[in-house]
Amino acid sequence: LQQPERLLILAEGFSADPHYGKTARGVLAYGERPVVALLDSARAGETQSGVPIVGTVDDALRFEPTTALVGVATAGGRFPAEWRELLRSAISSGLNVENGLHEFLADDPELAELAARHNVELRDLRRPPADLNVPTGANLTIPAQIVLTVGSDCAIGKMTVSLELERAARARGVEARFVPTGQTGIAIAGWGIAVDAVVSDFVAGAAERLVVEGHQRGGELLLVEGQGALTHPAYSGVTLGLMHGSAPHLFVLCHMAGETEVEGYPGHPLLSLPDLVELHERISLPARKAKVAAIALNTRLLDERAARDAVAAAEAETGLVADDPVRFGSARVLDAIV
Amino acid sequence: LQQPERLLILAEGFSADPHYGKTARGVLAYGERPVVALLDSARAGETQSGVPIVGTVDDALRFEPTTALVGVATAGGRFPAEWRELLRSAISSGLNVENGLHEFLADDPELAELAARHNVELRDLRRPPADLNVPTGANLTIPAQIVLTVGSDCAIGKMTVSLELERAARARGVEARFVPTGQTGIAIAGWGIAVDAVVSDFVAGAAERLVVEGHQRGGELLLVEGQGALTHPAYSGVTLGLMHGSAPHLFVLCHMAGETEVEGYPGHPLLSLPDLVELHERISLPARKAKVAAIALNTRLLDERAARDAVAAAEAETGLVADDPVRFGSARVLDAIV
Repeated sequence: LQQPERLLILAEGFSADPHYGKTARGVLAYGERPVVALLDSARAGETQSGVPIVGTVDDALRFEPTTALVGVATAGGRFPAEWRELLRSAISSGLNVENGLHEFLADDPELAELAARHNVELRDLRRPPADLNVPTGANLTIPAQIVLTVGSDCAIGKMTVSLELERAARARGVEARFVPTGQTGIAIAGWGIAVDAVVSDFVAGAAERLVVEGHQRGGELLLVEGQGALTHPAYSGVTLGLMHGSAPHLFVLCHMAGETEVEGYPGHPLLSLPDLVELHERISLPARKAKVAAIALNTRLLDERAARDAVAAAEAETGLVADDPVRFGSARVLDAIV
Repeated sequence: LQQPERLLILAEGFSADPHYGKTARGVLAYGERPVVALLDSARAGETQSGVPIVGTVDDALRFEPTTALVGVATAGGRFPAEWRELLRSAISSGLNVENGLHEFLADDPELAELAARHNVELRDLRRPPADLNVPTGANLTIPAQIVLTVGSDCAIGKMTVSLELERAARARGVEARFVPTGQTGIAIAGWGIAVDAVVSDFVAGAAERLVVEGHQRGGELLLVEGQGALTHPAYSGVTLGLMHGSAPHLFVLCHMAGETEVEGYPGHPLLSLPDLVELHERISLPARKAKVAAIALNTRLLDERAARDAVAAAEAETGLVADDPVRFGSARVLDAIV
């Protein structure tokens, strides 16, 4: 029998960052495998979510990790140069390495050779299946309710909302399945395809395959992890391919309360919530028109009073149910989708 | 000095097909390299656009081709099994092979070995550059007028309209440049990136790079070849990434007159022209709102009278200039974009 995996999350520089550290944070909050340590040298000695933070791979070894997970994201998905030393150190210490960046470790001759020498695996979570193609139409025939999270921007909590809704639905006895479409979701759930790493012609085909598999895994309510945003200057193509390929019946529209500009893209304004609702509904597949069922606000930048005001304002503005599922619970948003 | 290339276009089964044979037809009509023969065994002995049609690679050799161009497209971009024999025959006859499918010839060990033995090149037009990334913002700073063709469906003439507008604009003395974004456009113009073969996260970045290069090549009016359609069930992600990355000032909306359903996807209706106009304008980058300047109708399924009626109906329906640039000339559409 294989020893259960114990994760060391490599989060150098970004352990507390909600954007670039979102893989680390997501796996800590929702992952099924135990996390035994987090590496971020500037915070060594602290803890996060009860997990000790260490400064080096050597320091982590006393917690007996089996696998080092790259817990950061970078714009463009490439490895910063200083990370190579960290990866070499993990491999040389006998740890498998799991990586969700666009740059594949197994394709790096030096790291591949080192991994072979130390008998560890290099797992590239974003590597797409080799046999992808365009959709077949199966997405429109699955007997399941499909709900996709969409949003005004990247890294505002679409995956988290899908996971919270899965938990809440299961607690009510609904056969809900989170459908992972990105590297963090895959690291959490142990299956999936990173649709942003797929050849663009096959994004919809990959999304179709994921909802088919989610149903095969027993899902009657499929909570598909959204990606990007429809008017994001860099990632909108991923968003739309995922929307059409996963063929949702309903959207949950996620938004970071108070934000008015695309993060990291100054001069690129966000659309208003009502405009986003209308745009998503208009561009949904004509063969399966989808409605926005609810607004999921991320209110972490606000105090409690301001958060409640933001929720009320979003409801007034859109006429839809709005809530912050992380802060105030998922019940009301769940009611809107089941 | 290198011998100028002379093309044999491999179009077995599809030489006359406007969809699957669109690469063959596009290169015949607009390519800069001479086409000396077309291969399609069922039509051997005929001619097309003045070019002799042959039944085998052997038959083609008397026309002294230097390069065989794969002139067909397949859904999903893979090679049908029967094509391998044709490719082996071309390579063994000493021809370079140029291929725009998703399946790369140079990655096929048998064909690569054969090509090395016969000292010919295997050129995969859809292979993306290795160093792509997300957009930098350069797309918004180029001092050129950017016009993107968009459409209600695939394979209805977006590339052709861009090429016709380039010709007409140059005839007026405008420094116009066609910007190729797909395999046929690349085979015609000799540069470009097939954005549908790019990792989906980098579609917008690739599109940005293309408009920057189009401007560097002297373009003051950039006529960007469109791809797919915003509500196409398979390819919409490519369309939207290209829209946002190329950052057009104006769209020309292409439509096959009379069609109401996505080709090859029964049960998937097209949006109406006014709905398409509104959707494209709504989803254009908030930092560069773009308008639809004109409708380019493809009226080849209609007789002349019905074609003129369709043009008039499209104008009445949208309030925009409409015309069929191939059938009736590009002047009116060009007037709407310069």
